[in-house]
Amino acid sequence: MGNYKTKLVNIKAFTFDVDGVFTDGGVIATENGDLIRVHDSKDGFGLRMAVLKGYKTAIITGGTSESIRKRFLGIGVKEEDIYLRSRDKEPDFHDFCKRHSLKPEEVAFVGDDLPDIPILKVCGLAVCPADAVAEVKEVCDYISLYNGGKGCVRDLIEQVLKIQGKWVFDPVAYSG
Amino acid sequence: MGNYKTKLVNIKAFTFDVDGVFTDGGVIATENGDLIRVHDSKDGFGLRMAVLKGYKTAIITGGTSESIRKRFLGIGVKEEDIYLRSRDKEPDFHDFCKRHSLKPEEVAFVGDDLPDIPILKVCGLAVCPADAVAEVKEVCDYISLYNGGKGCVRDLIEQVLKIQGKWVFDPVAYSG
Amino acid sequence: MGNYKTKLVNIKAFTFDVDGVFTDGGVIATENGDLIRVHDSKDGFGLRMAVLKGYKTAIITGGTSESIRKRFLGIGVKEEDIYLRSRDKEPDFHDFCKRHSLKPEEVAFVGDDLPDIPILKVCGLAVCPADAVAEVKEVCDYISLYNGGKGCVRDLIEQVLKIQGKWVFDPVAYSG
Amino acid sequence: MGNYKTKLVNIKAFTFDVDGVFTDGGVIATENGDLIRVHDSKDGFGLRMAVLKGYKTAIITGGTSESIRKRFLGIGVKEEDIYLRSRDKEPDFHDFCKRHSLKPEEVAFVGDDLPDIPILKVCGLAVCPADAVAEVKEVCDYISLYNGGKGCVRDLIEQVLKIQGKWVFDPVAYSG
Repeated sequence: MGNYKTKLVNIKAFTFDVDGVFTDGGVIATENGDLIRVHDSKDGFGLRMAVLKGYKTAIITGGTSESIRKRFLGIGVKEEDIYLRSRDKEPDFHDFCKRHSLKPEEVAFVGDDLPDIPILKVCGLAVCPADAVAEVKEVCDYISLYNGGKGCVRDLIEQVLKIQGKWVFDPVAYSG
Repeated sequence: MGNYKTKLVNIKAFTFDVDGVFTDGGVIATENGDLIRVHDSKDGFGLRMAVLKGYKTAIITGGTSESIRKRFLGIGVKEEDIYLRSRDKEPDFHDFCKRHSLKPEEVAFVGDDLPDIPILKVCGLAVCPADAVAEVKEVCDYISLYNGGKGCVRDLIEQVLKIQGKWVFDPVAYSG
Repeated sequence: MGNYKTKLVNIKAFTFDVDGVFTDGGVIATENGDLIRVHDSKDGFGLRMAVLKGYKTAIITGGTSESIRKRFLGIGVKEEDIYLRSRDKEPDFHDFCKRHSLKPEEVAFVGDDLPDIPILKVCGLAVCPADAVAEVKEVCDYISLYNGGKGCVRDLIEQVLKIQGKWVFDPVAYSG
Repeated sequence: MGNYKTKLVNIKAFTFDVDGVFTDGGVIATENGDLIRVHDSKDGFGLRMAVLKGYKTAIITGGTSESIRKRFLGIGVKEEDIYLRSRDKEPDFHDFCKRHSLKPEEVAFVGDDLPDIPILKVCGLAVCPADAVAEVKEVCDYISLYNGGKGCVRDLIEQVLKIQGKWVFDPVAYSG
């Protein structure tokens, strides 16, 4: 994990698993069979900042609920960059890179469980929350001090945007 | 932060951000795309006390859900003092002050993240929860010992009402 | 608080506030303006045991949601013993006692905030969760080691039923 | 508890209570009287792994909500192996064993409260979360280090599958 900071300067895009990353892993099983989730407003603000500053962003999740799509559309992630029902995740990661002409080494990914490992092994900055499973921690460049749903997304985005001089809040741009 | 207690005596109104202040920052992303929140009953009781004792109150949030409006209408905040979709927040703060003929130095504000900083810099008592972001803590008069959604609102209201001799519970008035 | 155990043997009925007692104080503000709550299954089991063993039970809450009524009807609390919209609470407590020919000293009450104090001062066993407000703790016979929504109800019921020889689980009766 | 590891090698099936096992005991009381629950995605992944590797699985709960059935059907538990409204639980456990020609000593069960004790006394591996009630802990072979809803299910499944050489993730099979 020693040299992850040198990788921060090259990141042009952020990609994420959802459960255990944007959330604490909890899923509310509703009466109609859907699973809905508790997201974090500080993570949401961080992701919004990344979108406004021009970073490409993607969601790659095994989750199937339309509530996930709506949450991230609301923040500004593009429809075609939200991969639901992704259980074999690595091909979706490469699809995202190809469509945006990004090299994998320019893309950060945050995951927390076994299905995330294939992407973590090929992306440019492999990140996990403090409460990821052991096998995930072993392959990550950076283990956040924050748990899933408790700031690990914000932590990564702030570090990248600050080192690249982009962590500057503009109320008027934010309103637009 | 040394002299915030001297400011408590001048406060005539309370204004608040919502996410991370009345809540722990969690937002439940529902199936229809709305975001709903977990509020705290002790905070709600404190705010109800402030309303009953005649303090002006306002909500200034980037949130867009009608659930926010209904929650605060139920407590007694006036419709016109609930600002939803407020991302450039300072103008809304001044609008509230103007409509109620309040000077900014008579109004407390509680916020937790970057969009709250412009108000925190101009209000009469700048307050944040214990888990606000670092940049917010730097500009506050008082950092509550309580986290967002875990008592920071009640903490502020109790301190102001007690120092002004208004923290007196009357069951009959409360029922009215 | 020294002698609360001597009071346990005289208890014939349990009465409760809801927010901060059966819950951690959180209320989910839904899109239609209702407030719904997270209850605890171990508390629910304890209350079901009390009902099956013949104890009278009541809910006295300022809450207005029909979800509260349905939760406690499901456990076996009687419709007429569920007081919603109770803000001036003491008259409702006396109404419950009168209807069931109970003396106040035979009835335990659990509350956590200022509106509960009038009942706590007249009931037979005044109990609060570990995270009740200071003014409530001052008037209680017993402060549970457990927080609201985290076992304080179960704690009280187990202590009373055990000292009275009623904490005996019968799967067949429970199924009935 | 000393020899529970020797029992892991014989386990062919997993059976579970729900509240306090897959959850932290919290139940959201909805407006229509249903109770819905927050499940954990890492537990869900573990259970999915067990299903894919051919282990029999059952849910035996006093809960009545169809949301429970839908959650576990989504993971791959078979319809006939989901016992809702089970308050006298031991007969349901034996029904499951009989239908699948399993001996009780080949079946693990995880429970946390008094209604689970009859099964815990007859199953092949009696497990509870760290926050089970005292009476349950006394009869268990293994007390997980994790609380209900916070990893106790994943903990058990990982231990069994690892000792039996089945904890191997295959993205393609997982997608199927």
